[in-house]
Amino acid sequence: MTYRVPTQDIRFALQELADLPGVLELPGFEDFSAELIDAIIDENARFVEQEVAPLNRAGDQNGAKWNDGVVTTTPGFKKAFEEFAKAGWQGLQHEAELGGQGLPKLIGAVACENINAANLAFSLCPLLTDGVIEAVSMVGSDEQKARFLPPLMEGRWTGTMNLTEPQAGSDLAQVASRAVPQDDGSYRISGQKIFITYGEHDMAENIVHLVLARTPDAPAGVKGISLFIVPKFMVGEDGSLGARNDVWCASLEHKLGIHGSPTAVLLYGSGKGDVGEGAIGYLVGQENEGLKYMFIMMNAARYAVGVQGIAVAERALQQAIEYANDRVQGAPLTGGKAVSIAHHPDVQRMVVQMRALTEGSRALAYFAAGVNDKARHSADENARKRYQALYEFLVPVVKGFSTEMSLEVTSLGVQVHGGMGFIEETGAAQHYRDSRILPIYEGTTAIQANDFIGRKVLRDAGAVIQGLAPELVATVAKLRERAAQGGEHQAALGLIADRLEAGVKSVERAAMFTLMNAQKDLSAVFLGSVPFLMLSGYVLTGWQMARAALAAEKALSEGNQDPFLRRKLSTSVFFASHLLPRAGALAQSVADGVELTPYLSAELL
Amino acid sequence: MTYRVPTQDIRFALQELADLPGVLELPGFEDFSAELIDAIIDENARFVEQEVAPLNRAGDQNGAKWNDGVVTTTPGFKKAFEEFAKAGWQGLQHEAELGGQGLPKLIGAVACENINAANLAFSLCPLLTDGVIEAVSMVGSDEQKARFLPPLMEGRWTGTMNLTEPQAGSDLAQVASRAVPQDDGSYRISGQKIFITYGEHDMAENIVHLVLARTPDAPAGVKGISLFIVPKFMVGEDGSLGARNDVWCASLEHKLGIHGSPTAVLLYGSGKGDVGEGAIGYLVGQENEGLKYMFIMMNAARYAVGVQGIAVAERALQQAIEYANDRVQGAPLTGGKAVSIAHHPDVQRMVVQMRALTEGSRALAYFAAGVNDKARHSADENARKRYQALYEFLVPVVKGFSTEMSLEVTSLGVQVHGGMGFIEETGAAQHYRDSRILPIYEGTTAIQANDFIGRKVLRDAGAVIQGLAPELVATVAKLRERAAQGGEHQAALGLIADRLEAGVKSVERAAMFTLMNAQKDLSAVFLGSVPFLMLSGYVLTGWQMARAALAAEKALSEGNQDPFLRRKLSTSVFFASHLLPRAGALAQSVADGVELTPYLSAELL
Repeated sequence: MTYRVPTQDIRFALQELADLPGVLELPGFEDFSAELIDAIIDENARFVEQEVAPLNRAGDQNGAKWNDGVVTTTPGFKKAFEEFAKAGWQGLQHEAELGGQGLPKLIGAVACENINAANLAFSLCPLLTDGVIEAVSMVGSDEQKARFLPPLMEGRWTGTMNLTEPQAGSDLAQVASRAVPQDDGSYRISGQKIFITYGEHDMAENIVHLVLARTPDAPAGVKGISLFIVPKFMVGEDGSLGARNDVWCASLEHKLGIHGSPTAVLLYGSGKGDVGEGAIGYLVGQENEGLKYMFIMMNAARYAVGVQGIAVAERALQQAIEYANDRVQGAPLTGGKAVSIAHHPDVQRMVVQMRALTEGSRALAYFAAGVNDKARHSADENARKRYQALYEFLVPVVKGFSTEMSLEVTSLGVQVHGGMGFIEETGAAQHYRDSRILPIYEGTTAIQANDFIGRKVLRDAGAVIQGLAPELVATVAKLRERAAQGGEHQAALGLIADRLEAGVKSVERAAMFTLMNAQKDLSAVFLGSVPFLMLSGYVLTGWQMARAALAAEKALSEGNQDPFLRRKLSTSVFFASHLLPRAGALAQSVADGVELTPYLSAELL
Repeated sequence: MTYRVPTQDIRFALQELADLPGVLELPGFEDFSAELIDAIIDENARFVEQEVAPLNRAGDQNGAKWNDGVVTTTPGFKKAFEEFAKAGWQGLQHEAELGGQGLPKLIGAVACENINAANLAFSLCPLLTDGVIEAVSMVGSDEQKARFLPPLMEGRWTGTMNLTEPQAGSDLAQVASRAVPQDDGSYRISGQKIFITYGEHDMAENIVHLVLARTPDAPAGVKGISLFIVPKFMVGEDGSLGARNDVWCASLEHKLGIHGSPTAVLLYGSGKGDVGEGAIGYLVGQENEGLKYMFIMMNAARYAVGVQGIAVAERALQQAIEYANDRVQGAPLTGGKAVSIAHHPDVQRMVVQMRALTEGSRALAYFAAGVNDKARHSADENARKRYQALYEFLVPVVKGFSTEMSLEVTSLGVQVHGGMGFIEETGAAQHYRDSRILPIYEGTTAIQANDFIGRKVLRDAGAVIQGLAPELVATVAKLRERAAQGGEHQAALGLIADRLEAGVKSVERAAMFTLMNAQKDLSAVFLGSVPFLMLSGYVLTGWQMARAALAAEKALSEGNQDPFLRRKLSTSVFFASHLLPRAGALAQSVADGVELTPYLSAELL
């Protein structure tokens, strides 16, 4: 087995931390019993372990190939995607009335993690397709939904997001692709898009491109961008495929990682199709509202990319543990014969650091998914609004923190292997390379931090943080209460309480600084944006680990001997002692912003 | 120009921080005038920029190739090494009476940084050769010195270190290669060595392998290891090359980075040479003392690998600055047209973080090199001893900290490039891949930390730290004194003083914990070994940056308008506000060791 889905930790997070029982009671989810969810998770694990995980190395070593506009994916990918489609995984979390299975996002998050851990490069295809389904579901016309959603849900077609152009990366105001309206209501699209994930491939019958472009009279900047559906092959009224549209893959990028995922340069309107000049596209929603719509799919994708960070971290962790247990090297501190390196303190530190970051981020991401389900399904409108604000607050943290931490985890994964980690055959290096894109695509960490500071902290004057802080303080109180009752883990619970309490104060310090300086020194605030985002990540993740410690200690104290529980407690104590202290350092850096800005300028770089 | 040697920062560090004037006054260095040193630095910069740096990409894309035991290096490498040899750079820091040029190690460190920044993979060949020269100089017989040193110094031959075997990595007690004495006083060596850098190549006439092996009656473990010289081609009395020795390159590794550097599996005694079975080797020094001798070259190599970290960081930094200045994307916070990303606060944060880590580590490494020169050349024996203890204390910090920080710097380098950073053509990804070996080879960071805690802190009961702390406190006092005089930079100097003072307390806290728990809970101490090492790195490096701030502020206050000075002050303030706070977090983690150890074990991994 090349990868084993950590079903016990997943179930623990769902049950104890992300309130799966509460989610299953929400209107619309009544039909899903706990048993059915269990069966789905098991079947998903079996599927990704057997069908997808074994292709991970092949994707790296024998990535997608381009030849005159035609892209051939890694041998095995096409077959695996067929199996994925056949089993109905693509529709898992999409609305039942539109052809999906309507499961909670919480279960969608599990499936997303599993397939990405099995094979990050492969999974980008369904990940992007999810985003297209979500956008068309929410803002497409009934005709567009009827025509495009069923084959996308069934995995017969796949989807892409076309935002980036050479001059327009993080700055979408620079988008220059043009869309000229035709007499029949369609548009002719022309322009060049780059970094288009699965922009061309051989795994599906058709590809549905969602493309940002400007109509002739559109205003400048982001207010003049419209969203279009551009199918690779034209689609007849009966759903049959027709002429090749004028969208052409000019080349694939040669990348540091995720070699199995074709990253395409797409030319629209180069005259290479069968439809004359200009790719035929269909306006989605209203003209000039494209950015708003694209954010629908981008927010879904941002959350999913955060989950990708957890996925690659879990895979690196499993590989490191296996090596640490197998590799015999060096006598223990107490002397004697050489032992497996798992016995050496620093190897234990590295492995548990990897686990703490991974399991903590998983817990936070699942927690956020549960919040999303409540935001969409709660009976009470005020509750929906409250959960929606909390979910939107959490998305940039999940995306930014989980992807940044995946760099640390995959780097530690290499380090645990020593010299072998630097040898490509070992496989540890692949995770290190693959993960490096995660803090970049779907909005860099700085973009997440801007969103976090600007829209999620300043816009509501810190209301979400103020609402959340008492919940963390309550966890601190519960830890203290439990510690006061004595027992084997008294000191550990007390330590977690102390570090979490300090963490909460660090968040409050950074929030206060941000709110107080936003008017008079915005540069100082944004200089601390990424540190503030990461600080929030450590504290929110540390909060989940503290809740996990409470649950684990309770079960242990009730006589449950499962080693999983002691391991969870170990991971929680480690998180508190080695990761939560980073929050204080980050808060200090945020708060120094005002003193620092006079010394930073473009001229001084 | 693909790379530009940062001569202004190098001169600043030499002059203001590493006491070059004091070094040049030491006995043995009187002949080197400041002008001569200046000329050497300029010529070295010209050489690496023109001859070595342009080959960096080629080495990555078209690395060394193996064919039936023969290794062909990247086109251009052989010629560049000839130029390197011709110009006399190999002998730069080696003793004049043995054929070197006898320059201070401080200048050797500069040359080491420059060539490694130009081309990390290429420079491993002279780096390892330096180690062989150092070992033979110190423990070789007169006959061995006469036969092997001149061609090594002249760059006609190169050297390698052969420690690792498949079962013996960090744990050299497991070395199993055998050395059987022959009637003529030589030995026949057999065994397999792996990870041998430049173990086979086409850049020199001969290769001098230094090999660890066991004689037939040797005791088990590290006390039974002897050191042998094994030349690739036998060497006649007149220095002429003869029969091919029985050492054979079985394969090269396929690595994550440094593709230009051939990493060989070497078979000794496979019968493939012209000398019968068993490679002919010559004992260096005494039998069973091999490990001690190998440490001579390893300590030199460890320092040099630390400098490699600085080198690759500097190269990544220059590339990031160039991109940040060129890439126009996004409006500034104040609104308006799109500007270069160098105007955005988080890009400034990333670039200055890269610079702070790089320049701080450079300053510390040069400081250490100056200490080494004083340890070897001071007239007073007590001074020599004191400096030697300080140098040995600093080596694991320079190695561990500079290489770990290079991972952060090269990762930020990718991030500054956004999506382009993930594309291999950009070049940023190469530094990210190349640097990943640095915290592993020549002793992993954990091995450095063990050395640091065990030999440099516990063995002398913290004497070196106790001796050093008052110097840091004195710098804090100077900063406060200067801040008290007012002026434009009052707040900045005060901030640096506060953060450095907190850093010193963090080191003292970690040292106290280590000394107090070494007897009763050694696991808890070693669990914090890497955090303690990194903490020491931040504080010692932050100390150098604080000294740099004092020097820069003084020159500015005297009317010097050089933008370099304001940039240096900027970097120093940034170091204090964004990097020194990490020391407190690390000290907290070290001090939590006792609470944490009950939760860590091999069984729980």
